Amino acid sequence: MAHINESYFNLKGSYLFSEIARRVKAFGKAHPDAKLIRLGIGDVTKPLPPAVIEALHAAVDEMASAESFKGYGPETGYEFLAEKVAEHDYGSRGVKMAADEVFISDGAKSDTANFQELFAQDCTVALTDPVYPVYVDSNVMAGRSGEMNENGRYERFVYLPCTAENGFNPALPDRHVDLIYLCYPNNPTGAVLTRDELKKWVDYAREQKAVILYDAAYEAYIRDPEVPHSIFEIEGAREVAIEFRSFSKTAGFTGTRCAFTVVPKEAQAYGRNGEAHGLNALWFRRQSTKFNGVPYIIQKGAAAVYTEAGQAQVRGMIGDYMENARIIREGLESVGLNVFGGRNAPYIWVKTPEGIDSWGFFDKLLNEAHVVGTPGSGFGPSGEGYFRLTAFGRRDQTEEAVERIRTRLNL
Amino acid sequence: MAHINESYFNLKGSYLFSEIARRVKAFGKAHPDAKLIRLGIGDVTKPLPPAVIEALHAAVDEMASAESFKGYGPETGYEFLAEKVAEHDYGSRGVKMAADEVFISDGAKSDTANFQELFAQDCTVALTDPVYPVYVDSNVMAGRSGEMNENGRYERFVYLPCTAENGFNPALPDRHVDLIYLCYPNNPTGAVLTRDELKKWVDYAREQKAVILYDAAYEAYIRDPEVPHSIFEIEGAREVAIEFRSFSKTAGFTGTRCAFTVVPKEAQAYGRNGEAHGLNALWFRRQSTKFNGVPYIIQKGAAAVYTEAGQAQVRGMIGDYMENARIIREGLESVGLNVFGGRNAPYIWVKTPEGIDSWGFFDKLLNEAHVVGTPGSGFGPSGEGYFRLTAFGRRDQTEEAVERIRTRLNL
Repeated sequence: MAHINESYFNLKGSYLFSEIARRVKAFGKAHPDAKLIRLGIGDVTKPLPPAVIEALHAAVDEMASAESFKGYGPETGYEFLAEKVAEHDYGSRGVKMAADEVFISDGAKSDTANFQELFAQDCTVALTDPVYPVYVDSNVMAGRSGEMNENGRYERFVYLPCTAENGFNPALPDRHVDLIYLCYPNNPTGAVLTRDELKKWVDYAREQKAVILYDAAYEAYIRDPEVPHSIFEIEGAREVAIEFRSFSKTAGFTGTRCAFTVVPKEAQAYGRNGEAHGLNALWFRRQSTKFNGVPYIIQKGAAAVYTEAGQAQVRGMIGDYMENARIIREGLESVGLNVFGGRNAPYIWVKTPEGIDSWGFFDKLLNEAHVVGTPGSGFGPSGEGYFRLTAFGRRDQTEEAVERIRTRLNL
Repeated sequence: MAHINESYFNLKGSYLFSEIARRVKAFGKAHPDAKLIRLGIGDVTKPLPPAVIEALHAAVDEMASAESFKGYGPETGYEFLAEKVAEHDYGSRGVKMAADEVFISDGAKSDTANFQELFAQDCTVALTDPVYPVYVDSNVMAGRSGEMNENGRYERFVYLPCTAENGFNPALPDRHVDLIYLCYPNNPTGAVLTRDELKKWVDYAREQKAVILYDAAYEAYIRDPEVPHSIFEIEGAREVAIEFRSFSKTAGFTGTRCAFTVVPKEAQAYGRNGEAHGLNALWFRRQSTKFNGVPYIIQKGAAAVYTEAGQAQVRGMIGDYMENARIIREGLESVGLNVFGGRNAPYIWVKTPEGIDSWGFFDKLLNEAHVVGTPGSGFGPSGEGYFRLTAFGRRDQTEEAVERIRTRLNL
């Protein structure tokens, strides 16, 4: 009898988005003329930059003739792209990175979900709370969670609360952990860490022989020069950290799919006998066995992000989204709401008013302003009492949403 | 201390194709003027069909304006593609398949490697021998193999030998197994199963409550009208089978990356308590948690394969490759080699001459004819004494390779 991986039974239904859909649908039925504005899901709305479009067309043409046609590429990505990543994303910031430490992939989602495969099932996982649900669910599926307790927490995970009280800057775990998921700029809180704060984590990981899985998908939104763009700007990080990056939020690739994961040659994990093994070679083995690379066409499109024109276009796009963030942040502050994030991140994290929980605020915003956001409690227990809005909407819609919140919300 | 998934230590050597690459590189260094012809890796050489190129350009243009731009798509694929698959690949052959039973992905390699995640670690895996190494390695990594014994077999796998002696048609397992990997038309042997032979497997799986993971990536190469194109042509298969298909070998997508996996609603596996669970819902959960879908542009390109023009172009391409197969098959037979496959599959499976093993024949072919093939032993112990050539080369190179084998090989 083919038995199921019973760890799947520990997964909690994706209550968050189905519940949002259910409430939005019910509202639409009751108010068929209401014009909803969605600032909930973190999906971009601006088209691909012209430099990328041009490169995609050129690559499609290459696929049309036998002379320039490309079949299987290197599973971990073409050198032409990995080298550009190493040079522009790392070299330019004084971080030395070799092209074969850069693994091109179809998404930070896939990579953050799959990387845990390299580790033993009994590793202890630490997660910030609130958190991007993929880190949680992929480790539940892999059997590292145990069951969920009555507080909505899995018994074997170590939760690191991030709230206004600690400035969304989590304390180090109070016990040993093996794998630490960090995401900065943070989804959903929009918080960032300074070099010193990040160094604390690198030092902890070195001391504990732990591995930091560092999601930097939103690094392009950093404005403050004091905030590190990469964990590898921190001394010693190459031994203990893996970094995930993506073209999704940088260059509008959410539907075009290209990302990369950086695994330094020094990064290690350990056999039961204590012997160290390089994660670079293990990830190479994983990817070459289970993945066949990103489409050539798409990799050519991604490489165009690093041309002079591409860089200027991408900067313009991000600047526009960050202007949305400012509009939302200041608009909400002007009606007395307590607002976090949105300065170095495309996410605005709102404290719900006294006596209103995350779902209560969702309903209030939906009913009074016809604006859809995401209840903070959907990202974990410590997200209760918060609410996420995103800067990825169209400008006119973002402005109208804020105007409605200012004029129609009963606070 | 972050411990490694020690199942990785059970993986043997480097992946077959990397070892070939290593030997070819060394040969190239020693003989810089030799003109190598590669008939080894199953990679296509013909450009994408014009209908696909046209659709790709159109989709790139859609991504250039905000009105038609596509962000995140459905993780399991756009309906416009899944519906075409259901209609053309199944409906047209009398097999009823719903669009939500078709999961669009980036490759049959990813899907055949990942699908095992849904099953318990103690499931017994049956594999034909020789076999596509991805089925083996993904189950080794997942901890289902045990260690390799002195015969080159993992102690916990059940091997189903396929050799000239049994006509490359494996016998049913002599004991209970839970997961059965079958690939027809077969990679590497080029063998096919008739309806009756395939029905034997479906009946066995129903009786044992096992699951058949059926890789039909090469179905487009079937010429014999008696050979089923899909396992779902067999009665009862919807309860016990998953089918993997790909645009790679059908439409030249090896570097463009699009495939699909069919998981019927009736397909089941079991909890420890014996309760049945649908694999369709489990695979949906897996894919929506760990994957973000295939690029919109690429899915539009794949959909063009189903247009009238696309179908005609694809048929022409496959016809050309099958003519290569005939040329190789007849050329090798003319020098007295014993040749299998190549009639309903793009693979030609050659018995190596008396006293020469698979790697010996690899080196011989490389050194004497400057032709690169694939040693049969790389596909498993029962592949020893065989050698794989593929029909995916350019016509002129295929003809020259055969001519060199005829004139330069010391047999």
